[in-house]
Amino acid sequence: MHCVVNKNALLNLINNVSRAVATRTTKQILSGILINLSSNTLIATAYDLELGIQDELSVQTEDPTFLQISEPGSIVLPARYFLDVIRKLPDEKVQIQTNSNYITKIVSGHSEFHLHGIDASEFPKLPSFLSSNAFKVSSKKLRSLIESTVFATSSSEVRPILTGLHVELNRDFLSFTATDGLRLATKKYPFEEVKNHTISAVLPGKSLNELAKILPDSDEEVVLQLSEGHSLFIFGSMHVYTRLLSGAYPDTSRLIPSQWKTELLINRSELLSAVDRAVLILRDKENNKVKMEIQNNEMSMSSNSPEIGNVQEQLWINEKSGEDVQITFNGRYVLDALRNLESETVTIRLNGSNQPFVILENQENGSLQLISPVLTR
Amino acid sequence: MHCVVNKNALLNLINNVSRAVATRTTKQILSGILINLSSNTLIATAYDLELGIQDELSVQTEDPTFLQISEPGSIVLPARYFLDVIRKLPDEKVQIQTNSNYITKIVSGHSEFHLHGIDASEFPKLPSFLSSNAFKVSSKKLRSLIESTVFATSSSEVRPILTGLHVELNRDFLSFTATDGLRLATKKYPFEEVKNHTISAVLPGKSLNELAKILPDSDEEVVLQLSEGHSLFIFGSMHVYTRLLSGAYPDTSRLIPSQWKTELLINRSELLSAVDRAVLILRDKENNKVKMEIQNNEMSMSSNSPEIGNVQEQLWINEKSGEDVQITFNGRYVLDALRNLESETVTIRLNGSNQPFVILENQENGSLQLISPVLTR
Repeated sequence: MHCVVNKNALLNLINNVSRAVATRTTKQILSGILINLSSNTLIATAYDLELGIQDELSVQTEDPTFLQISEPGSIVLPARYFLDVIRKLPDEKVQIQTNSNYITKIVSGHSEFHLHGIDASEFPKLPSFLSSNAFKVSSKKLRSLIESTVFATSSSEVRPILTGLHVELNRDFLSFTATDGLRLATKKYPFEEVKNHTISAVLPGKSLNELAKILPDSDEEVVLQLSEGHSLFIFGSMHVYTRLLSGAYPDTSRLIPSQWKTELLINRSELLSAVDRAVLILRDKENNKVKMEIQNNEMSMSSNSPEIGNVQEQLWINEKSGEDVQITFNGRYVLDALRNLESETVTIRLNGSNQPFVILENQENGSLQLISPVLTR
Repeated sequence: MHCVVNKNALLNLINNVSRAVATRTTKQILSGILINLSSNTLIATAYDLELGIQDELSVQTEDPTFLQISEPGSIVLPARYFLDVIRKLPDEKVQIQTNSNYITKIVSGHSEFHLHGIDASEFPKLPSFLSSNAFKVSSKKLRSLIESTVFATSSSEVRPILTGLHVELNRDFLSFTATDGLRLATKKYPFEEVKNHTISAVLPGKSLNELAKILPDSDEEVVLQLSEGHSLFIFGSMHVYTRLLSGAYPDTSRLIPSQWKTELLINRSELLSAVDRAVLILRDKENNKVKMEIQNNEMSMSSNSPEIGNVQEQLWINEKSGEDVQITFNGRYVLDALRNLESETVTIRLNGSNQPFVILENQENGSLQLISPVLTR
């Protein structure tokens, strides 16, 4: 294979794709990036068998120097070195040429690299898709669905299904839900396009986290396709594949209370700062216990670490209805929730000291955060 | 003790001082910051027994809210929590009050912390100084002396004296020198003030690195005092103490060749980029071997890693006199040297393949970098 390509375009391409390169693997091939040259495209692929990312550059008639392909072919190059080499090349033009021993020459300005590549036929095949089971969503909405929920996935492999995000599409709504058993985050958007089928799938949280980082913050359309074992997101020339998690996702709808004894409206950033200070002296192993007391129109928050000291915070509640209440929670969970909400105020709904409470984002299609109390003796 | 102080002024004060807090220690007192309130100053001190930093805030008649002291006294507070607490307080005014059990109340806005402090009498005393053995240097020059040399100190404790910077003051020059046995960096400034004594001391590289970070990039005067076992740097209200390393520093002056067989003038940033690419595929354990060949007015550089691949670089030499030569060196050492030089071009002087070579900064009072070749079979 042999081509000359614009340095920054290539760097951007392999930088995005490299998010799917396996970082800890004994299989050398998975730590590489596959480059395919056809007569008019350069395709880059990385695939760690859970997440796969593929994108391409095309020959441009209006700018012939952007990409010139003189000999099609393919090679797998070690991602880490390939990225570093391209990033540090001196000239904006890069020539890439592979010989029969998989040795790949990369030339730019007065700099010439030879990298040991691997036979492209050893690279794992990306899953194949039939285009039937597909729907569309705007990139911005998809990002928001992921970012509002993914932090609540479980990081423990005790129940692998909880490391995933539950994606549901029914006649009216597209919803994303995550729970680690102690908290739950869910967000849904009304779905205009009427479908004659429903979808329920569990996608790995880690992979969706990487997807969110490369999704443009625009209304660009993303096509989502689902097969038996995989999902595929397509936007522009970018293709992102993720494995589906197998097993039944717990029925979380019944966890969300439909009634409450106390409801309050409070400024989000003031609450966030107060919880941030309250957890400052706490440690994870002690569950980051923060105690909140609601009395009349005041909220007080406190935490205590026997070795370090204690904190008291006072906050004004904008509106309140229902009973006074006190509750103890894991401050880190409340921080995660509040940091990923955007509205100026949030609504909090409580059912006494021993029941989970809900934080609602006060905006159209806002997310819902459910947090279990830490039970104290 | 009891005071009310401006939040950002306090934060800046303890942030600077905290560079001398012990990070890995079993002595709890050394991980604290000592706060002393007198009738008109708040003094903050950190001292890990090697590096000590002390600075203060003073009562300002033109802005009485800057610092108000209602009860003098002192306390040691855990640095990590104290810093985090002050950083995150909601209001620009901070009230600090210590009770008889060393519990320190910190109040700002509707936020109230209680931190467990330690008896100030347990805090180690800073070294004392007689002001006789003192001289002055501009902050900018001192920073440049440290930054041009400190990277060449040894990081190994095999010869502890080499972890220090050799500071010499004679009738004409103030010079800083560092060497780890394989490379040497030295820089000197002519010294206007005629002294009737000479100074030769070895100061810990790590401590001077921290000092360089807080030295202002200005012509502000720094007073340097030396005693038997310690040095003290004073600029503004800031006092920085470092231990002296004991033992004789090797005589490095005879290492610097006064004759050479090849001399070249070359663009610094082009050379830097070429070496940066040459080391990209190399590893520390293989000495980062880069081979340089000078032939006529061209320099070629190459490196080779059996597993990854190889690199060739071509560079133009601006001027050259003397023999053609080839030499193999540790690319990381040359990178460290070139990154810490500022001139547009550098002069390189060589004495064949097996002798150390010199890189000179082409500017007034430039630094000198000496690098040993890696001998290849």
